[in-house]
Amino acid sequence: MKKLLSLLFMICFLFPVSAENGSRLWLRYSTDGNATISCNKQSPMLGIAATELRRAWKGVPVTLSLQRNKETRALGEEGYRLFTSDDGRKITITSAGERGLLYGAFHLLRLQDTGTENLSKLNIKESPAYNLRILNHWDNLDRSIERGYAGRSLWDWEALPSTLSDRYADYARANASIGINGTVINNVNASSQILSTEYLEKVKALADVFRPYGIRVYLSINFASPMQLGGLATADPLDKEVIAWWKNKTKEIYHLIPDFGGFLVKANSEGQPGPCDFNRTHAEGANMLADAVKPYKGIIMWRAFVYSPSDADRAKQAYLEFQPLDGQFRDNVIVQIKNGPVDFQPREPYSPLFGAMPKTAQMVEFQITQEYLGFSNHLVYLAPMWKEFFDFVQPSSLKAMAGVANIGTDANWCGHPFAQSNWYAFGRLAWNPELSAEAIAEEWLKQTFFNEELRMKNEEFGKGNEERLQSDISINSSFLILHSSLKQLMMQSREAVVDYMMPLGLHHLFAWGHHYGPEPWCDIPGARPDWMPSYYHKADKAGIGFDRSHTGSNATAQYPDSLCHLYDDISTCPDEYLLWFHHAPWNHTMQSGRTLWDELCYRYDKGVQQVRSFQRIWDLTENYIDTERFKDVQSRLKIQARDAVWWKDACLLYFMEYSGMRIPYDIERPIHELDDLKQVKLPIDNHECPTRKMLDERR
Amino acid sequence: MKKLLSLLFMICFLFPVSAENGSRLWLRYSTDGNATISCNKQSPMLGIAATELRRAWKGVPVTLSLQRNKETRALGEEGYRLFTSDDGRKITITSAGERGLLYGAFHLLRLQDTGTENLSKLNIKESPAYNLRILNHWDNLDRSIERGYAGRSLWDWEALPSTLSDRYADYARANASIGINGTVINNVNASSQILSTEYLEKVKALADVFRPYGIRVYLSINFASPMQLGGLATADPLDKEVIAWWKNKTKEIYHLIPDFGGFLVKANSEGQPGPCDFNRTHAEGANMLADAVKPYKGIIMWRAFVYSPSDADRAKQAYLEFQPLDGQFRDNVIVQIKNGPVDFQPREPYSPLFGAMPKTAQMVEFQITQEYLGFSNHLVYLAPMWKEFFDFVQPSSLKAMAGVANIGTDANWCGHPFAQSNWYAFGRLAWNPELSAEAIAEEWLKQTFFNEELRMKNEEFGKGNEERLQSDISINSSFLILHSSLKQLMMQSREAVVDYMMPLGLHHLFAWGHHYGPEPWCDIPGARPDWMPSYYHKADKAGIGFDRSHTGSNATAQYPDSLCHLYDDISTCPDEYLLWFHHAPWNHTMQSGRTLWDELCYRYDKGVQQVRSFQRIWDLTENYIDTERFKDVQSRLKIQARDAVWWKDACLLYFMEYSGMRIPYDIERPIHELDDLKQVKLPIDNHECPTRKMLDERR
Repeated sequence: MKKLLSLLFMICFLFPVSAENGSRLWLRYSTDGNATISCNKQSPMLGIAATELRRAWKGVPVTLSLQRNKETRALGEEGYRLFTSDDGRKITITSAGERGLLYGAFHLLRLQDTGTENLSKLNIKESPAYNLRILNHWDNLDRSIERGYAGRSLWDWEALPSTLSDRYADYARANASIGINGTVINNVNASSQILSTEYLEKVKALADVFRPYGIRVYLSINFASPMQLGGLATADPLDKEVIAWWKNKTKEIYHLIPDFGGFLVKANSEGQPGPCDFNRTHAEGANMLADAVKPYKGIIMWRAFVYSPSDADRAKQAYLEFQPLDGQFRDNVIVQIKNGPVDFQPREPYSPLFGAMPKTAQMVEFQITQEYLGFSNHLVYLAPMWKEFFDFVQPSSLKAMAGVANIGTDANWCGHPFAQSNWYAFGRLAWNPELSAEAIAEEWLKQTFFNEELRMKNEEFGKGNEERLQSDISINSSFLILHSSLKQLMMQSREAVVDYMMPLGLHHLFAWGHHYGPEPWCDIPGARPDWMPSYYHKADKAGIGFDRSHTGSNATAQYPDSLCHLYDDISTCPDEYLLWFHHAPWNHTMQSGRTLWDELCYRYDKGVQQVRSFQRIWDLTENYIDTERFKDVQSRLKIQARDAVWWKDACLLYFMEYSGMRIPYDIERPIHELDDLKQVKLPIDNHECPTRKMLDERR
Repeated sequence: MKKLLSLLFMICFLFPVSAENGSRLWLRYSTDGNATISCNKQSPMLGIAATELRRAWKGVPVTLSLQRNKETRALGEEGYRLFTSDDGRKITITSAGERGLLYGAFHLLRLQDTGTENLSKLNIKESPAYNLRILNHWDNLDRSIERGYAGRSLWDWEALPSTLSDRYADYARANASIGINGTVINNVNASSQILSTEYLEKVKALADVFRPYGIRVYLSINFASPMQLGGLATADPLDKEVIAWWKNKTKEIYHLIPDFGGFLVKANSEGQPGPCDFNRTHAEGANMLADAVKPYKGIIMWRAFVYSPSDADRAKQAYLEFQPLDGQFRDNVIVQIKNGPVDFQPREPYSPLFGAMPKTAQMVEFQITQEYLGFSNHLVYLAPMWKEFFDFVQPSSLKAMAGVANIGTDANWCGHPFAQSNWYAFGRLAWNPELSAEAIAEEWLKQTFFNEELRMKNEEFGKGNEERLQSDISINSSFLILHSSLKQLMMQSREAVVDYMMPLGLHHLFAWGHHYGPEPWCDIPGARPDWMPSYYHKADKAGIGFDRSHTGSNATAQYPDSLCHLYDDISTCPDEYLLWFHHAPWNHTMQSGRTLWDELCYRYDKGVQQVRSFQRIWDLTENYIDTERFKDVQSRLKIQARDAVWWKDACLLYFMEYSGMRIPYDIERPIHELDDLKQVKLPIDNHECPTRKMLDERR
């Protein structure tokens, strides 16, 4: 009987029947670890590291060794060396810091789960590229998430600090597994309430949960907090009372949270208060705060996302406003700059502010949440976009990397199952920006979908049972399909969304307010011109695109000479940036030989066909993916396919009114009427993803 | 000044700037005729014929010659000879009857407008295949049209008899131009009111308008009229009072309308009263009426569209009920039978009742209005369907041809511009069922869209200016495009709708009530089983389709031996009828080599791709078609493209639940969720075509 039960247990265990809802993210280790794990020190963090290994590691014994020697000091407190002994009978992870051991443990488990390394001959040295690898949550205190499409904010403010959701530790663990070591937990459009004593107690409770996972807490602050919270008459950063208020507040914070990270500041942008309200510079505002946190080794991340409606060419603003401030910031200030000069469009050239402030620390802000990329309805793998950024900006020129999180209370954390890959990729790239997007995708796919059958295959492979496996064609085929086709799908997904939304350098064509869906015709009387799509596409009878060359706004001049010349000349400007830098005539000859109008049509349609191919590829994986996640992704791909046609039809039918040209006849015809599409008004907020029903009823 | 005005007038005339709304149908002659037209007799009908020629004929003088000689008598009163004199300097149309001259005049104008004949050497003899070529209007007295999607009933009952709409004469003229000589003006689900004195006066007014166009009026009657109108206690056809009532009523009618045609009767069908209510046979009911109209040379068209919910296999009912009555009908009764045994589905085998009553006159009832074929949203040319019927039923075995009209008050008469082609084709086939569908399509296209430029080309061609024309590539190309591509589009359209709605013999899968859109899952508690789609598709885990072979309902046995054997054996049954006659297993091997399931998927998708190709072809004609009609058709094709995907997704996703199989992976994936599609409920009646807005909001 016992034997039978054991057998049944094994069967259930090896072939889990419980549905997968994505809540385990990429950490789907089977918890049947059986190895000996030892550690030369006890601590909460090391306890976590050891427990992870004990639960899941199935190889030779592992020793976690905290060591301060020449080698480990060179790798840093977060770095580690991971090596197998010469006789292959044990593995050591060594680091100068506990965090290094924690990261090393996760690294080892990743190796096991992805089967990429010969585990018997490991000799790995790792050191993160940046000391600060940080998420930005645009979470509001009412638990809505600005531009969040995966449920509500994780932070249950009402229940904190006394009640701690299990998800806080799960969140920290997930981040630790990919090396994220910082988190700004509240919206950059900040409520001053976050700095109230009441809320700081709650923040402390979160910080306490995160700490053993190596994660430090940071806060977004409202620059007018001294007035809103402190009752002061001003928030002038040079005002003595203001300075004092911030000093006291900082002291209060660090009393509660000794390793508090610092502040993230959005100031004088989109209506947020800031030093400029008091005729002070960004530097003066940042420095006042920097001085306040300096004694505690804190930092200030000061956002350069500024643009004034009265100036020409929004894309130039951040540079014009910040470049002259080079050298004026304190050492513990980092200027945080979005990857592109406008706002997280499907494709933007990199922001020329990068590299233009040699005496100032800079960090990049990427957007993981898909504000302009289909919310949680569209499958878009973003690592290629971020790698593209690093083609132009040397990773080593940056001080840190921030990502606007796509995480919420949804069971699967991110809404779209594939959105998890972007959280994962952000962490991996923040750790090592030299990793390829493809390698990261492969890691993620293996860990996220690699089913038990295939894991066992890897174990057999590891045990040297290759022959037995070669003959098992079905396992091998599924292996190939999962990895090859899905990886290709992920790698193509970013370009697909560029194509069906805003190809050839077009940008900012989306719907007013919520940003879901196309609205190139949008015209709100009295609205800021630089919030209107027409400001960006400038379509007219002559052509389309924003002239940022020397004949226009001359934004090209903000770039280094070689790029400036490349972009400025319409005949050398790469197709993918053409309409970003030029107002090109409809019959302009593209690199393909087609006219601009024809190319536009082909790109839009290509995006549509790409999404259909994604549907096809995904359906092919059905037998190899658990039903729940299979159907979830399949369902969202249907929405994406319809949205792609919606985007294509809306933009081509609208721009056709200016070009006067016809869609090439070998391209699939529109199925919508422009007038109907102009009537579409989705009833959603800036933190809601439209449901299928909403989309049905509107299109 | 005069010269200038003349020039301006000529320019406007030759290049009309007024929009085309389709109201001129295929009669778009320029009214600048200049020839001498003579006639050897005066009469209203001959006046019409002569006027038509005077207005539009631009050739040699024409003589209309009413002659009773051996030749003309052989051709009949509706037939004619049309010939050019030996010296080519005049054309004569001769007939034994005025109607023949009228039809001959229209024939000549058709030749001019289509340029198909060398007009200098005509020698044509024509004689209609049927004496009765008749439209059935399912118009109600409240002006709604059952299964009508082109506006309201033409007959303005309130204004009649004193006010006559211009459209009555236009209607008659259009029919005369294609040889239709009879019309039943009211719904077969008849109101007895139509026989009231008040209404008969109105009917007379219409008959008076139609008469000079050669069109006789008929009426649908409610069999219970003696009770409903006459206050009698019964409608038993053998009852003396009932017989007398009908005699008197008939007398009243013929007093008002001496050439009244007779009655069309739907009895004991779908709740309509009939002789069977009084334990009399259909023959007894028909004969009573036949005797009443006999003295006046009237006829009775008695519909065989009967099916009782308590019997098995609806497709067998008409045969079972009517075949035994063979030889029992009066000479002036024609049994009117729908082309297929169920009800006007996109494809049905022909009704085996045809040819099974050798001693009884039979006529076919086609449906021109697209009750099951997309209303006035879908472009479907139906002549191929009717020609397919004639592949099985010898035209000469029939006595007459009836078509359920698609005509209403819409400016373009038929809703969809291409729906006009079916009215046209019905008339041409009723005149000559040997004409090919393609030839009819060509005639119609030329007359309906042949613009001034091309008409002038034909004139030049006629004048011998070929050289000048060969060099004008644009005219020649447009000529080719218009005729070749559009003709091909029309010829493919019927098979396309079969493919995306109900391929491989599937039938009756449409939505409850209004019949627009797919509802294969439809299940109305308490409803007649033979109104439910599942009754017809019978999908289950084993397979799909209705077993009408000898192992099932044995409906195959109602067919002549050769066809019976062909259909009965699943391995010889043609693919297009497979699921009509067999409940085939999902993995049944089709003639293509594919499994049934796969074939089903390919057909549905093929239909979708076909419609997209129609969109492409139509868009190519943009420069050659007037803007109004171009955009109208383009707009409806968009709806059709979306509806095709709707049909495909609904049916495949639903049937997949039974087959357990997957859609082949080279087929475009569904973009809908089955659950969503099951929620679709269009808010329309049985005489409304859903608007784009309605369809948007539901899908």
